[in-house]
Amino acid sequence: MQNETRTIRAGIIGDGYTSAELNRLLAVHPCVKVVGVTSIENIGKPLADVFAHLTGCSEVVCEKLELESFLERCDVLFIALPHGLSVPLAKAALERGKKVVDLGADFRFKDKDVYAAWYHCEHEAPELLAEAVYGLPELFREEIRRARLVANPGCYPTGAILGLAPALKNRLLDLETLIIDAKSGVSGAGRTLSLNSHFCEVNENIKAYSIGTHRHTPEIEQVLSWIAGEKVTVSFTPHLIPVSRGILSTIYGRLACRMSAAEVQQIYEEFYRGEVFVHVLKSGQLPQTRAVYSSNRCHIGLVADERTGRLVVVTAIDNLAKGASGQAIQNMNLMFGLAEGCGLLHTGLIP
Amino acid sequence: MQNETRTIRAGIIGDGYTSAELNRLLAVHPCVKVVGVTSIENIGKPLADVFAHLTGCSEVVCEKLELESFLERCDVLFIALPHGLSVPLAKAALERGKKVVDLGADFRFKDKDVYAAWYHCEHEAPELLAEAVYGLPELFREEIRRARLVANPGCYPTGAILGLAPALKNRLLDLETLIIDAKSGVSGAGRTLSLNSHFCEVNENIKAYSIGTHRHTPEIEQVLSWIAGEKVTVSFTPHLIPVSRGILSTIYGRLACRMSAAEVQQIYEEFYRGEVFVHVLKSGQLPQTRAVYSSNRCHIGLVADERTGRLVVVTAIDNLAKGASGQAIQNMNLMFGLAEGCGLLHTGLIP
Amino acid sequence: MQNETRTIRAGIIGDGYTSAELNRLLAVHPCVKVVGVTSIENIGKPLADVFAHLTGCSEVVCEKLELESFLERCDVLFIALPHGLSVPLAKAALERGKKVVDLGADFRFKDKDVYAAWYHCEHEAPELLAEAVYGLPELFREEIRRARLVANPGCYPTGAILGLAPALKNRLLDLETLIIDAKSGVSGAGRTLSLNSHFCEVNENIKAYSIGTHRHTPEIEQVLSWIAGEKVTVSFTPHLIPVSRGILSTIYGRLACRMSAAEVQQIYEEFYRGEVFVHVLKSGQLPQTRAVYSSNRCHIGLVADERTGRLVVVTAIDNLAKGASGQAIQNMNLMFGLAEGCGLLHTGLIP
Amino acid sequence: MQNETRTIRAGIIGDGYTSAELNRLLAVHPCVKVVGVTSIENIGKPLADVFAHLTGCSEVVCEKLELESFLERCDVLFIALPHGLSVPLAKAALERGKKVVDLGADFRFKDKDVYAAWYHCEHEAPELLAEAVYGLPELFREEIRRARLVANPGCYPTGAILGLAPALKNRLLDLETLIIDAKSGVSGAGRTLSLNSHFCEVNENIKAYSIGTHRHTPEIEQVLSWIAGEKVTVSFTPHLIPVSRGILSTIYGRLACRMSAAEVQQIYEEFYRGEVFVHVLKSGQLPQTRAVYSSNRCHIGLVADERTGRLVVVTAIDNLAKGASGQAIQNMNLMFGLAEGCGLLHTGLIP
Repeated sequence: MQNETRTIRAGIIGDGYTSAELNRLLAVHPCVKVVGVTSIENIGKPLADVFAHLTGCSEVVCEKLELESFLERCDVLFIALPHGLSVPLAKAALERGKKVVDLGADFRFKDKDVYAAWYHCEHEAPELLAEAVYGLPELFREEIRRARLVANPGCYPTGAILGLAPALKNRLLDLETLIIDAKSGVSGAGRTLSLNSHFCEVNENIKAYSIGTHRHTPEIEQVLSWIAGEKVTVSFTPHLIPVSRGILSTIYGRLACRMSAAEVQQIYEEFYRGEVFVHVLKSGQLPQTRAVYSSNRCHIGLVADERTGRLVVVTAIDNLAKGASGQAIQNMNLMFGLAEGCGLLHTGLIP
Repeated sequence: MQNETRTIRAGIIGDGYTSAELNRLLAVHPCVKVVGVTSIENIGKPLADVFAHLTGCSEVVCEKLELESFLERCDVLFIALPHGLSVPLAKAALERGKKVVDLGADFRFKDKDVYAAWYHCEHEAPELLAEAVYGLPELFREEIRRARLVANPGCYPTGAILGLAPALKNRLLDLETLIIDAKSGVSGAGRTLSLNSHFCEVNENIKAYSIGTHRHTPEIEQVLSWIAGEKVTVSFTPHLIPVSRGILSTIYGRLACRMSAAEVQQIYEEFYRGEVFVHVLKSGQLPQTRAVYSSNRCHIGLVADERTGRLVVVTAIDNLAKGASGQAIQNMNLMFGLAEGCGLLHTGLIP
Repeated sequence: MQNETRTIRAGIIGDGYTSAELNRLLAVHPCVKVVGVTSIENIGKPLADVFAHLTGCSEVVCEKLELESFLERCDVLFIALPHGLSVPLAKAALERGKKVVDLGADFRFKDKDVYAAWYHCEHEAPELLAEAVYGLPELFREEIRRARLVANPGCYPTGAILGLAPALKNRLLDLETLIIDAKSGVSGAGRTLSLNSHFCEVNENIKAYSIGTHRHTPEIEQVLSWIAGEKVTVSFTPHLIPVSRGILSTIYGRLACRMSAAEVQQIYEEFYRGEVFVHVLKSGQLPQTRAVYSSNRCHIGLVADERTGRLVVVTAIDNLAKGASGQAIQNMNLMFGLAEGCGLLHTGLIP
Repeated sequence: MQNETRTIRAGIIGDGYTSAELNRLLAVHPCVKVVGVTSIENIGKPLADVFAHLTGCSEVVCEKLELESFLERCDVLFIALPHGLSVPLAKAALERGKKVVDLGADFRFKDKDVYAAWYHCEHEAPELLAEAVYGLPELFREEIRRARLVANPGCYPTGAILGLAPALKNRLLDLETLIIDAKSGVSGAGRTLSLNSHFCEVNENIKAYSIGTHRHTPEIEQVLSWIAGEKVTVSFTPHLIPVSRGILSTIYGRLACRMSAAEVQQIYEEFYRGEVFVHVLKSGQLPQTRAVYSSNRCHIGLVADERTGRLVVVTAIDNLAKGASGQAIQNMNLMFGLAEGCGLLHTGLIP
């Protein structure tokens, strides 16, 4: 059990946006010190020269990854890389008794064939898939507390699963009818240069992409299937919206039985009672991404539409916080016996 | 039959955004002259002082509505007001032999009870509901050519109906499963001040609103029912997105029978063959609102998802152009025997 | 001397954006509890229903101002109202031994005639003008520590004065040549409805306003005159930019003598050495508003242009944080003997 | 003299944003047909697949540049490339009797040493510098009419020079005091990928860049010197603003003599009397970039500030239209004897 007075030493692999967000959040975390950030392009540069908001708040200098010595300085390793690169890093860290939170997709699936089918590469360490815990604390808190290796959920899956879990757990919906129409800010695509992230291609624009083929689809289906106790298939459509942060997920399903809005509301409130970060909004209120902007929170709004017999669930998260780095720290808090909300209790940002 | 060399004199009631857009488009229409714009708040002000983009391009001065004399100067009356105000204006214009395009909701419904139920007011001239033609030229072109009174469609209905018409006409979809998830820019809410249009409330934000209760729902259902030949009910969810213009509609329906993507594609291309303003994108391409920005065009993209058995149709329009004032001018062109595309052939705006 | 273990009870007058920001920041301040927020339009409503980001983070219910009982519950009063309303509130608070931070303009001027000339109203309590301390801690820290009444600076003046203070203190510039070209986000105009804040009027737009006549001009000139020891006149041009938060001030002045960039850099670094919130960027770096977004920090960049003989100083602040509510809390920290950075040490927000 | 009934065949070198804009504008130009667009990355692709707004409006397929055959098909060559590449293209075109409008910087300077100093490369054809006409029609209309080779002005210079020309022509300003503080949208940086154009780096952000060192500085100074009849030096500071299009230039100069606002206003109105595209706004009005968005227009607003003795001129243009491709077409119109406004008379875009 972690002694709270000791500072946890965190090492971060990668210097993209999720790394920037880990650094932002950890800069004011009372129990953690970032001891190293690795880079390929910015080696030798102060991290605050790469991410100017860290000016005066971070003394880390980006370093070339030298795994042995890097791991020696860490108690926990955050891996913030594209998928396909995490296995050797996680293995080495675990062997040295370090804890690992992987922000990529490499440990999210229990079935290596699903990973191979959607990510187009064989998994290098299927045995770790069995051990890794899916890091959605509101569903798997106890497993995370005991985990050495946490697979931090994808951003879209976080919003979708939190929105559907109470309904599926309580068998409210016809599982054949689930549609998730999600709208995301651009930071979800990372800092890598791409025409899709060029300001002029995104600004004053709305578009859908990867309809029916996005890699978060099987991740959503895997976890919903666990909850439902049977195989769940969903239509998932991501959209790109001209905001930097935020995912709004509008989720549709046919109500399996006649049910009043008040009953649905009560089931959701009950499900999330006591959660620090998930807020079921009052009846009549709907989420907006600003309200959770920069925070680790998730807002959920519910409309049970009698006219159509459908339940519409809307969830809002910040894709970089609850959808990535905030949740990673929430997981770390649990893994080290800290208060779950430690360092993460700030609000969203309005205006 | 209109003699094209004669200039059509257009009168516009109202000075909100749809009026601004009528003036913008008509400023370069080769066959039309705007002879008057009425106002309540800006009486006596040059319209170019209200809408600075008209500087040097419009000499109209906003005037108090004096119906008799106003109508005398017009060949066609565009009514660009909130709903509930159009009936007396349209009646007077028709009596004087003028043609009318109403951009509001007052003549869109055939059933006055539907109007009353969703708009919370009794219709003052149900007899005109029978005469009015629903101004979606791609579906009702011949009726519009002969019409005296055209009810210009709502912005959301334009995007939704154009997206579903070929599928419903060809019975591709299970009518119980239709969901329209639409994302709109802010100009759709008009120029009237409201916290919902405050920059800081919209910027860097995404939200859904009026889930299951938006007034465009019955309008969509009415027209889809005509096309399908039976009563159609839809789930319609509008969202507010931080752009000034543009509606992206993501439309879901279960395919009624097994059907390849190529077959669906062919049906849509066939349906819209020869249309000036509706473009069915090639297989694999998806619409984006920028591509139709400021233009009267509609882009349609199709994904037939074998894994889920669903068809996903995505349409993009500019809510002020094809979704309002552009379409109104397209209707006017038809009513006056002009080429349908006259004055409207410019492209969208990238970047 | 404040005993840090006692919680400071803060009362906030007003429920606009600066009040929202006070509540956001104080929600995670370890030594302060917000005991009341007054409102006119939202009386009886939970503040979290007005500002959804406070959901789960604030239990305050908006209340009608009843001054006596309100003051009884407070140790400090934050007045977050438009100018012209603060005098009776501040007087009553001071009489009851409370401390006051006024976020409006009513106590910023030493000369009541300047206030009257620019704000077009007589000052109701000129005697308080003498007592009030101008709440820019980097310049007036000791006075603030001892103050009962702090006049929190305007947003534009904060960015302008911090940018010019080292230069004027060190007589680097020809005082006849000072030009401040400032660009602000929309939240600076508050939450009140106005066409100037309508999303569609601001989005994809840049404009200047109030050239030569903005009320922050005399405030800037007053403080710069104190620093320079002689009367300073400036050209000040504010611009409205489509962002929610942030002020970038680009400041021009002719160098009074030949001086290398390195010398200027050193003078600025020296001036702000040890400051928690003001960061002079390295030579070659320029500020950006994102880097201070949501934070109480100010970034300063310097270009001494030999070709033109001008010094260009660029400063970035968040108008709601260092430009208003963050600085108000920084002042409160000083007034109550807390660490100056208490509750304010988080970074800006990239991306 | 051009016979207007003959269609001008335009060839465009390059497929970046200025090329897209040329294609957008020429798609509705009554006298021009685009006969070819060259590319490096998109060879063989329909241009409408690269720029979706051209769907249904362009049948051009991007082609590899084969100069001989390309030129054969053209009457006019638009070169829309980065600087340094235009000389051989222009030479070859001129040799074949074609007219050339170069949108880059390669022919803008009369002094090859200035070009070499600021663009860091020797000029390959200094003899063409003498022939090339600086394509700002409001100043050099007659020369453009007779030109074979037009150097289309930079975007910033267009806004700056149009704002200062009347003042300098009339010796209103102390030439030692000129400061141009310009704010630009992102499309000015082109479509090439760069972190500076990444949505998340630009959105919700304001920053200055290249202070005192931007390459448009000597271009502005060259033309202002021509107008003033003596060497002019300016401070020029560009800023990046989160909009796709638009440049607002805020220009400062000390009035050389006491002069009323009305007198200045009259001088400007007189200077631009009869211009199709330059509008001097009424006293009290200030420009905004939206008002000229997507149009070839320039709005100018004037404030003569008695308090400071300064004249503040504000100009607004669309950097891609009047600041690049629109002006290029305006030049082409002049070179081919067309009406100057042909195909360019549409308004800006509000909202």
